[in-house]
Amino acid sequence: MDSLRSFLDTNKDRLVNELFELLKIPSVSADSAYSSDVFKAANFVASSLKTAGCDSVEICQTKGFPIIYGEKLIDPILPTILVYGHYDVQPADPIDLWDAPAFEPIIKKTDLHPEGAIFARGACDDKGQMYMHVKALEFMTSTGQLPCNVKFMIEGEEEVGSDNLTDFVKNNTTKLKNDVILISDTGMIAKDTPSITTGLRGLSYVEVEVTGPNRDLHSGIYGGAVANPINVLAKMIASLHDKNNHITIPGFYDKVEDLSNQERAEMAKAPFSIEAYKDALKINAVYGEKGYTTNERNSIRPTLDVNGIWGGYTGEGAKTVIASKAHAKISMRLVPNQDCHDITSLFKSHFESIAPEGVTVKVTPHHGGQGYVTPINNVGYKAASMAYKDTFGKSPIPQRGGGSIPIVALFEKELKSKTILMGFGLDSDAIHSPNEHFGLFNYFKGIETIPLFYKYFVELQSKM
Amino acid sequence: MDSLRSFLDTNKDRLVNELFELLKIPSVSADSAYSSDVFKAANFVASSLKTAGCDSVEICQTKGFPIIYGEKLIDPILPTILVYGHYDVQPADPIDLWDAPAFEPIIKKTDLHPEGAIFARGACDDKGQMYMHVKALEFMTSTGQLPCNVKFMIEGEEEVGSDNLTDFVKNNTTKLKNDVILISDTGMIAKDTPSITTGLRGLSYVEVEVTGPNRDLHSGIYGGAVANPINVLAKMIASLHDKNNHITIPGFYDKVEDLSNQERAEMAKAPFSIEAYKDALKINAVYGEKGYTTNERNSIRPTLDVNGIWGGYTGEGAKTVIASKAHAKISMRLVPNQDCHDITSLFKSHFESIAPEGVTVKVTPHHGGQGYVTPINNVGYKAASMAYKDTFGKSPIPQRGGGSIPIVALFEKELKSKTILMGFGLDSDAIHSPNEHFGLFNYFKGIETIPLFYKYFVELQSKM
Repeated sequence: MDSLRSFLDTNKDRLVNELFELLKIPSVSADSAYSSDVFKAANFVASSLKTAGCDSVEICQTKGFPIIYGEKLIDPILPTILVYGHYDVQPADPIDLWDAPAFEPIIKKTDLHPEGAIFARGACDDKGQMYMHVKALEFMTSTGQLPCNVKFMIEGEEEVGSDNLTDFVKNNTTKLKNDVILISDTGMIAKDTPSITTGLRGLSYVEVEVTGPNRDLHSGIYGGAVANPINVLAKMIASLHDKNNHITIPGFYDKVEDLSNQERAEMAKAPFSIEAYKDALKINAVYGEKGYTTNERNSIRPTLDVNGIWGGYTGEGAKTVIASKAHAKISMRLVPNQDCHDITSLFKSHFESIAPEGVTVKVTPHHGGQGYVTPINNVGYKAASMAYKDTFGKSPIPQRGGGSIPIVALFEKELKSKTILMGFGLDSDAIHSPNEHFGLFNYFKGIETIPLFYKYFVELQSKM
Repeated sequence: MDSLRSFLDTNKDRLVNELFELLKIPSVSADSAYSSDVFKAANFVASSLKTAGCDSVEICQTKGFPIIYGEKLIDPILPTILVYGHYDVQPADPIDLWDAPAFEPIIKKTDLHPEGAIFARGACDDKGQMYMHVKALEFMTSTGQLPCNVKFMIEGEEEVGSDNLTDFVKNNTTKLKNDVILISDTGMIAKDTPSITTGLRGLSYVEVEVTGPNRDLHSGIYGGAVANPINVLAKMIASLHDKNNHITIPGFYDKVEDLSNQERAEMAKAPFSIEAYKDALKINAVYGEKGYTTNERNSIRPTLDVNGIWGGYTGEGAKTVIASKAHAKISMRLVPNQDCHDITSLFKSHFESIAPEGVTVKVTPHHGGQGYVTPINNVGYKAASMAYKDTFGKSPIPQRGGGSIPIVALFEKELKSKTILMGFGLDSDAIHSPNEHFGLFNYFKGIETIPLFYKYFVELQSKM
């Protein structure tokens, strides 16, 4: 793809200016005051896809904001790539912490980005990253180098939970049929260290309530003679980990897949300073499950954390009360194959079973989500890896994300295909925060890398 | 004392009416709106003591409300009894839960008191119980039967912490010199089961703070890789008891005296239904230190209870946060000989020592107080026991109180004499609550029993 560099050089300013037009639209899906702007952004995306070479573009209405579907199908025997992204953005609040208005994009140089970065809400998440795919398509169609079929599905409700996406996907499995899904909505390890997110953790979140006596009691009169719900809750929570910080819920690890040594070795190549990590958090030591590194603990291993706890007297001074009730919010991050509903059930049964006499326990599930993993030996991963190697001069590092993107599990379940999380963002991009930005370097690297993914994916697929 | 019954019969109405006058004065020490009423109650007590036969009565001013000192010294070679009580009362709030105005005393019959009970704030705590001693003195002086010297010290700040009593006692040790201190400010087991409180628990109260990372973290990104302060706090709290519910702080039990089998056997005579206890609290089982009964656990054994706990997200729904800090308020009820300052130090050292790497721990002491015990073989206890036997037809049961009355330890330390807690109240009297009352039966039994205590105390003392 010799012409790729010259396309970028020739169109540099236009590629930035077009993105600026999209960034100027305050498409905040969470705030109804911006509703018409969200629709405006939907139209912008639809017309961009047309311009980029899609033969057919639909603005699919939902109960909320539209999903833009576009496709260019060149030959049914060739593979099909489905691109997912979103055109809605987070609110700009707190607006007074922005150095320049959130919806008036500008280019500013920073220490990390001496060549400049685009500052605006959505610059990275996800308008900038999504638009890379539109422009990569434009390059391929305009130069006659599109090697396969391509479909786009760009939604406007990602920042508010993708409520209408599930039905859309379920009702359009034939239309959305594909061989691989490509998403750029994550980050990479560092500007010079490409990485591919190969896994996301699932989530089980519960609230527990321990009830002892039917009313608050005077600790002088009843202390030591009745089960104190706070002490009992502390004991129950403490018992959920053993001395090696393994989780003690029976069956919790049954479906946890151990990563291959190769995968762990690949992960361990990521540049990481334990001293810098500790210093950033002002802690004197890290902590966690025995036998795993910090980066493994927060990505490939399931966890159990108390997110909130309360009970009894919490005001100033001292009150000698034994509370009737104690509460906690507890979440478990899950790794692929751990079903979030199963884990919630296992937690509930176990937590109820360890309640001592003298108290009753109530476990209420909150929301959950399934985890996801892409093996690094599949065609999509290999194609992405080769593409990155061409543009960055080194192979990307597979990286497990600690958080959760529930739609990825949905895609796998309904569309039976793997997702490649080919993110070009950086941790320092301040997504969801004031002064969000996206390096020009990253933006152009994305546009440059994506067509190479198409090329390698088709080549590898044809050899299977 | 044959004339005792006839004194009570003859003066029945007057004894009630006089107490009514005192109860009508809203001497709420906690509320400055009632200041002048507190002084009014002080004057009432002073004049009552004069009427009852004291040769000298002083209204001793303090930085707060006055302490009334009265004495009748008949012979320096005879023993001296010091009576302590208080004329201030708790606020009447919540006033709308009273069936009749709190400071307009009335007599009402109840199931437990078919002969009637006096309903008013302070009826039992402590105006009614204190006034029994004034009237008992009146009986003895008016009939020429006072067998020893007597001193009264009645304060007006008991409900707000007795702030000025310590200095008064320390500065007047000669004036207050005595052979035994008599206090009626506690209860007995049941209307037909007299008991004497032989011990009170001390108190150590601390607040703990566990700090992990320097800010709240996202549990998806950091979960499992850093010490979570709430999980750590739960584990630390859980470790403070072993599987038998013994407290694990090194040295905690060093000074705890085991009660003699005789004392435990006496205590066990108290009527007690474990089923009624569980039913009243709506619990399916009691809980506590192995090897001890419920009544022992809440009186003769030290305890450790969490009185409050908080940290992280405690609002509605779910937030996947790892808190930077977690907090708890923890109190220990102590038994006699356990010094509250020592125990606070032991707790602090131990709690700091068990903090795992990755967190820091801060322990802040709140208030404390020393415990107290009266052996049941001393002269005061024996005299009280004989007096109760005469008036109730059965010996009183020695009873350890679970709560704390710090002044009793102060008296022992400064005045070198033992206190006899000769309470005539009942648990059902609703002290500190709406509809406080004091049975006419209890009031008259008190006036009847007290002179017998004087008589037996002097007899036993003379034999030593």
